[in-house]
Amino acid sequence: MTVAQPVAHLTAEEYPKVKRTVDFKILDPTDLSYFHSILSNDEILESKNPGDLVSFNQDWMKKYRGQSNLILLPNSTEKVSKIMKYCNEKKLAVVPQGGNTDLVGASVPVFDEIVLSLRNMNKIRDFDPVSGAFKCDAGVVMRDAHQFLHEHDHIFPLDLPSRNNCHVGGVVSTNAGGLNLLRYGSLHGNVLGLEVVLPNGEIISNINALRKDNTGYDLKQLFIGAEGTIGVITGVSILAAAKPKALNAVFFGLDCFDTVQKLFVKAKGELSEILSAFEFMDRGSIECTIEYLKDMPFPLKNEHNFYVLIETSGSNKKHDDEKLSGFLEETLNSKLISEGVMAKDRADYDRLWTWRKSVPTACNSYGGMYKYDMSLQLKDLYSVSEAVTERLNAAGLIGDAPKPIVKSCGYGHVGDGNIHLNIAVREFTKQIENLLEPFVYEYIQSKKGSISAEHGVGFHKKGKLHYCRSDIEIRFMKDIKHHYDPNGILNPYKYL
Amino acid sequence: MTVAQPVAHLTAEEYPKVKRTVDFKILDPTDLSYFHSILSNDEILESKNPGDLVSFNQDWMKKYRGQSNLILLPNSTEKVSKIMKYCNEKKLAVVPQGGNTDLVGASVPVFDEIVLSLRNMNKIRDFDPVSGAFKCDAGVVMRDAHQFLHEHDHIFPLDLPSRNNCHVGGVVSTNAGGLNLLRYGSLHGNVLGLEVVLPNGEIISNINALRKDNTGYDLKQLFIGAEGTIGVITGVSILAAAKPKALNAVFFGLDCFDTVQKLFVKAKGELSEILSAFEFMDRGSIECTIEYLKDMPFPLKNEHNFYVLIETSGSNKKHDDEKLSGFLEETLNSKLISEGVMAKDRADYDRLWTWRKSVPTACNSYGGMYKYDMSLQLKDLYSVSEAVTERLNAAGLIGDAPKPIVKSCGYGHVGDGNIHLNIAVREFTKQIENLLEPFVYEYIQSKKGSISAEHGVGFHKKGKLHYCRSDIEIRFMKDIKHHYDPNGILNPYKYL
Repeated sequence: MTVAQPVAHLTAEEYPKVKRTVDFKILDPTDLSYFHSILSNDEILESKNPGDLVSFNQDWMKKYRGQSNLILLPNSTEKVSKIMKYCNEKKLAVVPQGGNTDLVGASVPVFDEIVLSLRNMNKIRDFDPVSGAFKCDAGVVMRDAHQFLHEHDHIFPLDLPSRNNCHVGGVVSTNAGGLNLLRYGSLHGNVLGLEVVLPNGEIISNINALRKDNTGYDLKQLFIGAEGTIGVITGVSILAAAKPKALNAVFFGLDCFDTVQKLFVKAKGELSEILSAFEFMDRGSIECTIEYLKDMPFPLKNEHNFYVLIETSGSNKKHDDEKLSGFLEETLNSKLISEGVMAKDRADYDRLWTWRKSVPTACNSYGGMYKYDMSLQLKDLYSVSEAVTERLNAAGLIGDAPKPIVKSCGYGHVGDGNIHLNIAVREFTKQIENLLEPFVYEYIQSKKGSISAEHGVGFHKKGKLHYCRSDIEIRFMKDIKHHYDPNGILNPYKYL
Repeated sequence: MTVAQPVAHLTAEEYPKVKRTVDFKILDPTDLSYFHSILSNDEILESKNPGDLVSFNQDWMKKYRGQSNLILLPNSTEKVSKIMKYCNEKKLAVVPQGGNTDLVGASVPVFDEIVLSLRNMNKIRDFDPVSGAFKCDAGVVMRDAHQFLHEHDHIFPLDLPSRNNCHVGGVVSTNAGGLNLLRYGSLHGNVLGLEVVLPNGEIISNINALRKDNTGYDLKQLFIGAEGTIGVITGVSILAAAKPKALNAVFFGLDCFDTVQKLFVKAKGELSEILSAFEFMDRGSIECTIEYLKDMPFPLKNEHNFYVLIETSGSNKKHDDEKLSGFLEETLNSKLISEGVMAKDRADYDRLWTWRKSVPTACNSYGGMYKYDMSLQLKDLYSVSEAVTERLNAAGLIGDAPKPIVKSCGYGHVGDGNIHLNIAVREFTKQIENLLEPFVYEYIQSKKGSISAEHGVGFHKKGKLHYCRSDIEIRFMKDIKHHYDPNGILNPYKYL
């Protein structure tokens, strides 16, 4: 049985076909002298042994490990600019790094790239409570942005399980979606402006931009989701929303995915402006979670094929509760749902969310998991999970030990058309891997879905974009990369 | 006294410094033969006398008039592609045109450019009521999109006074904001995918894209607000919102703009999720409108320095009315506002909106108006109006006839930080023009605002981007233009 390694294998060894670009300079003492001349001691970490710098070299899932000897942690945009200008001139490769919580190997080096960490750029710059415009350094931890805005009766328009570690800049670079996209929309709509250092050191900024600005092409948009391949985001201006005064949740049991869709349409129409999350989990997801949470009592009496968590948030507790309990009653009476329970209080609300938020950890608790993150039209959303489960079942791989697969679990954000597929395994095997890939990607392609809904491309999905992008789109993307970063020094071996 | 001309002056004569690019080919019979070979008769309009084609040559405000002899109205993306490929090879300049309702001279030719009208591409392609994804040809009139979605219990996430004429594709090309941006957000967040014909005829499409897709740079974003300078939008996929079941409105009178801001913060916090518009008008705007609407009774008893219209929309009429009347009562009791009235029914709601929607026409009713559309931080939003009024007053130009200026009026979308400044005049004079420009632009620059909040750049603001964009931003924009349209044939003499 394979369990998660304390230290990941070296990416260079696991993927021997990927070669270090010979054009990139190898770091030498002159370079170090230069960096010391512009940075103070607490802005440089160096070691002849990359093992000492493992937290910067290794990704959060421990799937990838690079071999950087040098971590730069500048505390100002001007220093980032100087670093990039120097690296561009010398052809030193650079990996920008935020909280290093990404899930596709985007934020760690592959070989000896310099890590440019934004963690010392952690100041909140400005907040205007009238417009809701919140400006901060890229390295502000999302939790701190939430905390600050909470104290000012606002909320950061995005939340993620990794909120205690991820950076605001990293979230924008990833174009993360999170739990409340249904309500607050995507970062392409919420980011007001960005300050970005280009590979040649130039600073391009519209961080003071206002909510509406139609003076030319909206350049900032390209950096949202670019995963640090064409510039280093150093500052973010984002639209904070007013803090909801009331929160509530209902947990439903349903028979089939068709009913999940019907419930979603009904919720959109009837809960409308207070609907802030619509999450689903299949039987397997909840079975794993029941095992994982052990003594925690499950909120429903019976088992079901599907479960849905609906969250509401609004400005009037009484109104919201009335709407939500009316909705629950009606769906029960009309037999649309089999069972449903509404949170009695805030603690109960938190407990209901626990059943959704624990799914990934639960799936990962048997030894490991294969993980996919996909967008599909809602009518097809669950079909990928069924197709994969059928395939793995046909091969006789799912069941009690010694079979390698515990369960195939599908769950995710119905409101966003985003399914996460976690294959909970006792061990990783080539047979499973070969059954999964390229099958999953080809399936998504046949349904015109996306092979990455919110986790991005990074190292993991480099070279796989053709499953959901046309040749002409990929060519235009390569042109953009080449235009912004002609030497290719920024986050190499990834993305395109 | 100058009144609006039935036909605008020729742009080429009004702006003699702008010269026709000699590289562009002059249309000849071979070209016409080619277009006839790929298009049917109802897809071509031609005339040796451009006067016959005035509705395509002249803009909606009758400020600009081009001299095109040829209007192409293809009914398919493939035909648009063939047209662009041919024009690119022959270096024939092309102006894409939607409903031709823009306010900056972006959608009409300057010289003899071919007009490529999208009006024959007017099919709704698909609607998925579960996800809300609505797909249509670019030439669908916004009113028709609203109507279709209304029948399917959804709404188009944008509304404009020009809804009866403007096209969905034109709205996206302009990145229009409209009356409900506060609630539904910007097109950068709502557009799911675009189908675009590039200047060389290539078709780049992600119109089947889903709500979340993180596979590479978000190429569609560049075309939103590009005003047809780098590609012709032929298809749009956009996220429709659930139709609100309840609508209501309150009309307030207030003493100063500081109070307007306080009211906005309070409304955001207390009406929160049901707040769908927060519009303000100054004394001048309403004085003009009272004169213009003549016999229509004004909803408030007294005159005030500022007026605010708040709209709510939600899923429960009783709840919404309770929130809104509570809000009104509280703001009256706390003396935050001087006077306020809530709509009694739908007809009353429509009447309250009439006082906001009639402002531009009212300002235009004395002979003409100078019109500016700007974004500023909320604290500065009204200051530009005060500065301009003071300047015009100091010159003794405002007052009863024979003074040339009737009133200087400021109004707009507080929620979006967007003010429209209308100088209602009895006649256009060089003296007024010289007092206004570059003063207005310099003022906006000094406050780090935007000289175009939502109307765009077009011909009117070409060469003025430096008032709110850095050199490096402008350089990057020019690079983008050159990259997508190396021959510069698409919508020339405009934008950059």
